[in-house]
Amino acid sequence: MIERAALLGGGVIGGGWAARLLLAGVDVALYDPSPDAGRVVEQMLGNARRALRRLTLAPLPAEGTLTLAGDPEAAVAAVQFVQESAPEREGLKRELLARASRAAPPEAIFASSTSGLLPSRLAADMVHPERFTVGHPFNPVYLLPLVEVCGGERTTPETVARAAEIYASLGMRPLVLRREVDAFIADRLMEALWREALWLVADDIATVEEIDDAIRFGAGLRWSFMGTFLTYRIAGGEKGMRHFIAQFGPALQLPWTKLTDVPELTEELLDKLVAQSDAQAGGATTRSLERLRDDCLIAVMQGLRANDYAAGASVATWERLLHARAVAPAARDDEAPLRLHRVDVPPEWIDYNGHVHESRYLQAFGDTTDALLRHLGFALDGGDVYMTVETHLGHLGQARAGERLHVTTQVLGHDEKRVHVFHSLYRTDDDALLATAEQMLLHVAAGSGRAAPAAPAVLARVARIAAAHAALPRPERAGRSVALRH
Amino acid sequence: MIERAALLGGGVIGGGWAARLLLAGVDVALYDPSPDAGRVVEQMLGNARRALRRLTLAPLPAEGTLTLAGDPEAAVAAVQFVQESAPEREGLKRELLARASRAAPPEAIFASSTSGLLPSRLAADMVHPERFTVGHPFNPVYLLPLVEVCGGERTTPETVARAAEIYASLGMRPLVLRREVDAFIADRLMEALWREALWLVADDIATVEEIDDAIRFGAGLRWSFMGTFLTYRIAGGEKGMRHFIAQFGPALQLPWTKLTDVPELTEELLDKLVAQSDAQAGGATTRSLERLRDDCLIAVMQGLRANDYAAGASVATWERLLHARAVAPAARDDEAPLRLHRVDVPPEWIDYNGHVHESRYLQAFGDTTDALLRHLGFALDGGDVYMTVETHLGHLGQARAGERLHVTTQVLGHDEKRVHVFHSLYRTDDDALLATAEQMLLHVAAGSGRAAPAAPAVLARVARIAAAHAALPRPERAGRSVALRH
Repeated sequence: MIERAALLGGGVIGGGWAARLLLAGVDVALYDPSPDAGRVVEQMLGNARRALRRLTLAPLPAEGTLTLAGDPEAAVAAVQFVQESAPEREGLKRELLARASRAAPPEAIFASSTSGLLPSRLAADMVHPERFTVGHPFNPVYLLPLVEVCGGERTTPETVARAAEIYASLGMRPLVLRREVDAFIADRLMEALWREALWLVADDIATVEEIDDAIRFGAGLRWSFMGTFLTYRIAGGEKGMRHFIAQFGPALQLPWTKLTDVPELTEELLDKLVAQSDAQAGGATTRSLERLRDDCLIAVMQGLRANDYAAGASVATWERLLHARAVAPAARDDEAPLRLHRVDVPPEWIDYNGHVHESRYLQAFGDTTDALLRHLGFALDGGDVYMTVETHLGHLGQARAGERLHVTTQVLGHDEKRVHVFHSLYRTDDDALLATAEQMLLHVAAGSGRAAPAAPAVLARVARIAAAHAALPRPERAGRSVALRH
Repeated sequence: MIERAALLGGGVIGGGWAARLLLAGVDVALYDPSPDAGRVVEQMLGNARRALRRLTLAPLPAEGTLTLAGDPEAAVAAVQFVQESAPEREGLKRELLARASRAAPPEAIFASSTSGLLPSRLAADMVHPERFTVGHPFNPVYLLPLVEVCGGERTTPETVARAAEIYASLGMRPLVLRREVDAFIADRLMEALWREALWLVADDIATVEEIDDAIRFGAGLRWSFMGTFLTYRIAGGEKGMRHFIAQFGPALQLPWTKLTDVPELTEELLDKLVAQSDAQAGGATTRSLERLRDDCLIAVMQGLRANDYAAGASVATWERLLHARAVAPAARDDEAPLRLHRVDVPPEWIDYNGHVHESRYLQAFGDTTDALLRHLGFALDGGDVYMTVETHLGHLGQARAGERLHVTTQVLGHDEKRVHVFHSLYRTDDDALLATAEQMLLHVAAGSGRAAPAAPAVLARVARIAAAHAALPRPERAGRSVALRH
């Protein structure tokens, strides 16, 4: 994990890096000659905060600090890592990297966000070019895991390994290239598709919207988690890739594509692209499209996380990192009541009639009980545990999407096998009590699955908490049963 | 909606069509010369049943009946729709379609699953070629929504419209092509990517796994819901597509790709592809990869459904169709107790310690309450409704992933604003009682959000149900409060 990074360039990509780094707790010094840079980064950061809060409930670290630097030299002083995201012009990047390399600590790792320029050429004028590599990210940088790492002729293997390690610590998925090559891997693939798509529009075979539909309702869904080769292997059946190529290889020779040429970007083609793209957007602003994109990315990544596969596995790995790095909960045994859990209402919690589904309140209470168990020292890894045997829920108000909620916990009683707790869920902004849950937790031994006394250390901890809570007034709604009262 | 369809060809694509049609309640007659065809379709159907049960909780219709036909003529007799999915050889398809067209009812719609052959040529020898169109699906056909509809020279607009309508009734997303063109839209895009990917392997720049990673951790995630043009529009910022092209158009002229040629599929390249693909699969069988693929597709589509966007909107539309078509619930007011809800435990319900998360039991009970409200005549569209104000949950056993559960409901009491219900959740296989929920429902007026008496028709219905339930024994756990009992 790094503590301080410099960013050279703060546009869509540089701003995305700023957001990813700051939200990972890294302090960032940004150099960008545009007077607008600070505003752009702030806006990106707003998007990123919203996105990460929705992507995960794992504890995010305290945000790093953003400083705007007046020149590249000021930005890179005393940092461990420099990421350059200047416009895609070789000369410009080369000079910027050379200047910065003279001012940075000699051990600072340098990376460029270039989509396709060769690292050996970019590093040509640097001091210590051996610590330079390409680190090519994808938009939005604060959400997409991929970063292509490609060293040049003089890059040391240690530099590549260190850059990959830094990116992984930010929750990314580094893909280290075997060879230095123009456009690396991803952009060659993306450009092949893009070139063909432009021909389809140029030849009036399809509009931009129809082309997008042809992707997103079909192959694009598969590409999101398996790519192309594994998908085709499956299509080959048990005989795998050899069978697939035998079946579909010949079609490659059919004159289906127009890949032999690039469509000329005439004014006419450009007008057509623009008009069709405007029609497709239907008046939506870029900002609303960005949110839609982020929401869909989050949904796809969360879906894949449930399968612990592809980008979902990246999210899961990153969450484990976050949990491992999280500072111990501030709650102490004498805090009365305990305050162990908070959550921002995700839009997925809202049901068909615009309300938070009743089961989501119990999800928040269940997560609070989990936090209590972690607080009591349980690893929640399949060993002994307390299980809920009974819950009484009261609904007093309604939470809305995006609202910040927190839960307090009062221990009402305990014996060697049981803990009797009362959770209260509040809207944090106005401290309105929205729901309560009274629960009986039963200690269950691993393996047998039978009720059994908890370990002495756990019981001592429970007793300390209960003693601290004994002075609290008994919650008004404790001990209720469901009944028609008149 | 159609009732009877014929399939000509039962491989990966034909079998996928069989599964989609049968699970939509359509009877299918299948002709395939392979003696293996029945087995292949049964296996595909097994995958599809599992996948659709996980994709949606909406009520699926009773499955259609599969018949194996000895020849094409027998298959197409008395059907409304014929889908041909024979191997990709023009002569073979042309002859098969001609034969079948002579035996089928003249008004039956014909479609071909071809990935790229021209409909005018395929229909050349047909009787009534005007009712023929291409309907090009994507694997797995029972899950992916896209189907490209492309008529030939003689196809009538009515045929294209009718085919699109049939596909939509099966939950698919028809994309009607403007012009007859080789390879349509999707395969031209897929092949451009595939061709470039083969070059990357041939030139030893990357392995098949690295190429898949370059897609699935980056652009593939975006392609799954926005395709390429809308994504790039966003990258262009507020100035949209024109700005994007100005920025990135020039890169199209860089010598980044090798699209001018097709790599020769030498034995050497083939061996390399096969070896890398085997390494990537790491010994996983095609069957397990198919399940992984389906699970990820389901997760991605469910995630997008929460945003009602792209393939998620297709799922939502299809679910509305299913709900609209579902037969009225069998439950009658004198059924005691009512049996209104069943659910198969989806894997998403399982938490870190292998148990169903406690909140999921309440989700099942909440869904049961929704079913009760629909039974009482509520549209659940934002008008008056009963809301849960209090719930008492008891946990008596554990459900596991994939188990079939059902819930019974007993009305314990009511007044003009309230209904007091007791739900019991059982594992259907052995009728084990796993959980109970006692709930107080309060009638709330639309708009004001205040408690108010329910409409007389609703109250009469509630009273009839309560009268039928009065003779039932009171559930043992009714009226409980949470307490340490010794």
